[in-house]
Amino acid sequence: MQVRVAVIGAGYWGPNLIRNFTASPRTRVVAVCDRDPARLQRVQALNPAAATTTDLEAVLGRTDIDAIAIATPVHTHAGLGLAALRAGKHVLVEKPLAASVAQAEELVEEARQRGLVLMVDHTFLYSPAVRKLKGLIDADELGEIYYVDSVRINLGLFQHDVNVLWDLAPHDLSIVDHLLGRAPASVTAFGACHADIHKQTEDIAYMSLDYDGGLLASFHVNWLSPVKIRQFIVGGSKKSVVYNDLEPTEKIKVYDRGIITHNTDVEARHGIMVSYRVGDVWSPHIEQVEPLQTMVSHFAECVTRRERPISDGAFGLRIVRILEAAQSSIKGRGQRVNLLRPLRVVA
Amino acid sequence: MQVRVAVIGAGYWGPNLIRNFTASPRTRVVAVCDRDPARLQRVQALNPAAATTTDLEAVLGRTDIDAIAIATPVHTHAGLGLAALRAGKHVLVEKPLAASVAQAEELVEEARQRGLVLMVDHTFLYSPAVRKLKGLIDADELGEIYYVDSVRINLGLFQHDVNVLWDLAPHDLSIVDHLLGRAPASVTAFGACHADIHKQTEDIAYMSLDYDGGLLASFHVNWLSPVKIRQFIVGGSKKSVVYNDLEPTEKIKVYDRGIITHNTDVEARHGIMVSYRVGDVWSPHIEQVEPLQTMVSHFAECVTRRERPISDGAFGLRIVRILEAAQSSIKGRGQRVNLLRPLRVVA
Amino acid sequence: MQVRVAVIGAGYWGPNLIRNFTASPRTRVVAVCDRDPARLQRVQALNPAAATTTDLEAVLGRTDIDAIAIATPVHTHAGLGLAALRAGKHVLVEKPLAASVAQAEELVEEARQRGLVLMVDHTFLYSPAVRKLKGLIDADELGEIYYVDSVRINLGLFQHDVNVLWDLAPHDLSIVDHLLGRAPASVTAFGACHADIHKQTEDIAYMSLDYDGGLLASFHVNWLSPVKIRQFIVGGSKKSVVYNDLEPTEKIKVYDRGIITHNTDVEARHGIMVSYRVGDVWSPHIEQVEPLQTMVSHFAECVTRRERPISDGAFGLRIVRILEAAQSSIKGRGQRVNLLRPLRVVA
Amino acid sequence: MQVRVAVIGAGYWGPNLIRNFTASPRTRVVAVCDRDPARLQRVQALNPAAATTTDLEAVLGRTDIDAIAIATPVHTHAGLGLAALRAGKHVLVEKPLAASVAQAEELVEEARQRGLVLMVDHTFLYSPAVRKLKGLIDADELGEIYYVDSVRINLGLFQHDVNVLWDLAPHDLSIVDHLLGRAPASVTAFGACHADIHKQTEDIAYMSLDYDGGLLASFHVNWLSPVKIRQFIVGGSKKSVVYNDLEPTEKIKVYDRGIITHNTDVEARHGIMVSYRVGDVWSPHIEQVEPLQTMVSHFAECVTRRERPISDGAFGLRIVRILEAAQSSIKGRGQRVNLLRPLRVVA
Repeated sequence: MQVRVAVIGAGYWGPNLIRNFTASPRTRVVAVCDRDPARLQRVQALNPAAATTTDLEAVLGRTDIDAIAIATPVHTHAGLGLAALRAGKHVLVEKPLAASVAQAEELVEEARQRGLVLMVDHTFLYSPAVRKLKGLIDADELGEIYYVDSVRINLGLFQHDVNVLWDLAPHDLSIVDHLLGRAPASVTAFGACHADIHKQTEDIAYMSLDYDGGLLASFHVNWLSPVKIRQFIVGGSKKSVVYNDLEPTEKIKVYDRGIITHNTDVEARHGIMVSYRVGDVWSPHIEQVEPLQTMVSHFAECVTRRERPISDGAFGLRIVRILEAAQSSIKGRGQRVNLLRPLRVVA
Repeated sequence: MQVRVAVIGAGYWGPNLIRNFTASPRTRVVAVCDRDPARLQRVQALNPAAATTTDLEAVLGRTDIDAIAIATPVHTHAGLGLAALRAGKHVLVEKPLAASVAQAEELVEEARQRGLVLMVDHTFLYSPAVRKLKGLIDADELGEIYYVDSVRINLGLFQHDVNVLWDLAPHDLSIVDHLLGRAPASVTAFGACHADIHKQTEDIAYMSLDYDGGLLASFHVNWLSPVKIRQFIVGGSKKSVVYNDLEPTEKIKVYDRGIITHNTDVEARHGIMVSYRVGDVWSPHIEQVEPLQTMVSHFAECVTRRERPISDGAFGLRIVRILEAAQSSIKGRGQRVNLLRPLRVVA
Repeated sequence: MQVRVAVIGAGYWGPNLIRNFTASPRTRVVAVCDRDPARLQRVQALNPAAATTTDLEAVLGRTDIDAIAIATPVHTHAGLGLAALRAGKHVLVEKPLAASVAQAEELVEEARQRGLVLMVDHTFLYSPAVRKLKGLIDADELGEIYYVDSVRINLGLFQHDVNVLWDLAPHDLSIVDHLLGRAPASVTAFGACHADIHKQTEDIAYMSLDYDGGLLASFHVNWLSPVKIRQFIVGGSKKSVVYNDLEPTEKIKVYDRGIITHNTDVEARHGIMVSYRVGDVWSPHIEQVEPLQTMVSHFAECVTRRERPISDGAFGLRIVRILEAAQSSIKGRGQRVNLLRPLRVVA
Repeated sequence: MQVRVAVIGAGYWGPNLIRNFTASPRTRVVAVCDRDPARLQRVQALNPAAATTTDLEAVLGRTDIDAIAIATPVHTHAGLGLAALRAGKHVLVEKPLAASVAQAEELVEEARQRGLVLMVDHTFLYSPAVRKLKGLIDADELGEIYYVDSVRINLGLFQHDVNVLWDLAPHDLSIVDHLLGRAPASVTAFGACHADIHKQTEDIAYMSLDYDGGLLASFHVNWLSPVKIRQFIVGGSKKSVVYNDLEPTEKIKVYDRGIITHNTDVEARHGIMVSYRVGDVWSPHIEQVEPLQTMVSHFAECVTRRERPISDGAFGLRIVRILEAAQSSIKGRGQRVNLLRPLRVVA
């Protein structure tokens, strides 16, 4: 059985979804909807069999559509997602799930009540490199995780309705949440606006997540960098990993390097005694699989079997929650924002 | 005339100073002093003509010594420096100048009153790459500076009396102070301790400096990284620079890339309008000159002419002040520390 | 006016041609022909408007087709190309033009007599990087060219009807011919067969072209390399260029470095006196344009205006001539093969 | 017991030998001899205890000297080496052993008759990276060796009495001889002269060694390259290795990648059938040991125990033999030179 999908939004990301839903044997694109007829014309070549329309209501009203994929600006996710869920459709939303925790909670609750699948397209979770990294951590290859350091910087692409944090950090936050399976205790963030003379839209941001037990996760996102960097370091007590997403083949490098501490009462008086362990470097083979293809397959499977996706609504909500708190920290010039209060929705 | 120098401390950094003072035609190493006779024996080959001794008082009492170079643990800098100044000697101190602002102020004041040269060995200021970068900024090649992002990470070398911030960040802070010629308004910092079971000594730290007008300088220093990175990005409104100190020849890359903003009232309602400018990359030739050699020459020249060194006591004090404030921010779990109160000493 | 094209061959390269002819406003794909119906089905999505057929004769007989694009195994190029020319069609052939000089000459002669365009898809000539490099050389930025060194190695992709030399070297030979505009005087080549137990198909080959005046061009092509390298060095008397096709943005680096010789009679007795010049490195901005799109546009323009393409039949013939001579040198275990005898066809 | 050494030649390489003989507990530098008193003065600081002299005869006549280390121009190696051997001294010679096979044979024969150690400073054999690579090959990790490809190129350093082949290729030839333990059947080489207007001294050279069974070893040495490359690929049937000597830590990378051939009679008619195996990449930890230190220790041990060094005279002779044959091939514009005739000296 093929899941019949309508794609809402034919701008930057929509065509990628159309292409992958078309290529997957588990899904079929029935319709594409956008307000702009010119965009609809451009995507028609991607799937000539799909109907194109500017009439959203008509799409939601069609009974031969099982699921709606939303690839529109972030501030429209909640409205479109709720409308789709209320029309009885399963929903896939481009990241981030929504523009606020309140909106995200509403989506999660609506999907829960209706028993529908709500999934966020956190594409990186479905990439072979992140899956390999997840496998290494789950197999305790790295030992205790000491820190995560993520750098995702390049020149542009400026978004019109979100800042660099909401645009780029969802990728890294989703990877960290997936890898660690833990919730941070607090967040602090800084940002700066240079391109926007109204100083509303940050184009550089730094964010730090504190976890209990000394684990620190730090993020640098930047739309003004002259160079493109996609570097993600996971430091562990046994081994450490550098994940460079720009490497064509050796994306993951596992370093059998670390420190051995020799703290004794005597030594503690004079400082710490540390020795180093320097071993081999190992780069596991990473399959050449398109993450988006894996993502749409997973969505189709979850819809078919009514199962929870890895990046379900609750997952997406956790990411939005951190983003909202980080944004609040930026506005507070770096004040620490607690993340331990319970969420309203227990998804 | 050669400046006659005694080097105090023959541990990790001292031998580098001995070698460079010996190689310079402007300086002569008269004595080397350390508490550990074994160390003294090891450095003798570096300069067989220099006397080695464990008797500090004797060294300070010698009238044929013009200057004292201090390469000892940070907490001893102030005591040794003051003793040397009070003995009428010019002083060169390994970075950072002292372990606290109070100590640093005392050193600066003592040198001022006695009319002696006090210089801090912030070696990077004397490297051809930083000098080239300074030249580019002073010639307004980069336009308005938007941000600085510095990453200095590697495995070890753990210090016994300072944490990673006091050990590594003085390099980057000195470069930023030298390049920008501006004082930050506030600092925030985070850190984590993993090697030290007493949780006293941070081995990872992040620090952000806020300047008036939106300029942000961020620093990542880390003793636990499996990979060594020495990357320093300066983003400007006209051009941007990436300075990679590990590159053997192309250390500086100038990117003629940036954004052009088109903010109008109409557009501002919908977000920012930005277009990109992508131009050439240029890597100026960097001379292969040993920075330490330039540093000792500069010290000798300043001593001879009684001039202010580039990295004089006041410079070193500014660096210590930021370090102390950052340390306080770390202990306050990232609370912002104001840097605008006037210093006690106007050097 | 759009050039109406039929594509013959829907295997590895054909789909790329179909996609680019479809995307170009100057061309239209009228038909796709292949012996294998399964392949035809797979490419239908690329251009649903194009007819698919296994009947070559029917395609050649259609009067609404202006040009035939051939993307079939090398040994079939001559037969298909002649048939297309004799049917009055302009012809674009995948590189290399043909499997032998004799075949290539026949194609060139046929096209000349009929006044039809014959073009070889030497795609690299239409890449922004090679065009930039050509511009630098034509502007005499490099001075006298001393040598070219080309490395094109990776694991696979083994071809079934040609060896590594005929598969990979046409790229580099076309670039060298285009850049230098000179014919080599002789060729020598070596090869080795490891994958083919019948020792018929070389998977590693080295080739050297000698030009008058000391210019040397050397090539390493290899299907067995564990790493992928696409590196092309052009050494000149004034400047030198390294062209790394795997670099995402800085593909071309111009090095203002070289030697200055001081040969005098006296010195010549004792050897050469050389000093070095080490200057800046400059990486000109390279546009992000799809070379194949430029290539199909150029083909369409040449067909429309009846002009000679840059990579016309005569160009393709010169490349085949070197390949054939190099193959002969390999079989002669590296014996030098003269390339100065005149070609039969003066195209 | 320490081996008492005199170093002849205090130019480019001599100081490195002096430093390492001085640092080794197994050796002691008794004297340094050079024709140029200025050089002698410069090296005195390296070992103040060593006598410096311009009188070679006096050095050879001293009975408190066990061994002579020769670091002079290549054309002087034979004369100096023979004089030292005839004076009853063990001899270490900078690479290459001599300027001709005849000279090298004479040295080997003289050492053999006198029962003295004759060793060539082929430093790379004593580097941790080459030792690691040797270990991998000896443990049959790579399977059958298919090819070796070596690139050693940079700008300068021009030598005055040898061309680029005699200057740089001894490194790579020594590594290949050591790793493979096999003699090539023939050599072909090309070269070009650009800096030398008398066209006597090649500054670019390519060389290929043919071994029985299809193994091919190829070398590119170049004094005119704008970039420095030190890359050595060993392709095997099981695994392949890339050894990049410029990498600070990951010098050796082992690729578990290759091809699987499926040649059958049926397939052979249509070409070869090959599939690919793409596995992990592994970079074994390489110790940070100074190769020269290991080399001088090995020399001291061989002198003390009267054992054959790894790079003994016979080893050095094999390298010279290939160099001489390659030079002859260059002069013959790439004609193949047989290497299978027996050597006069069976060392």
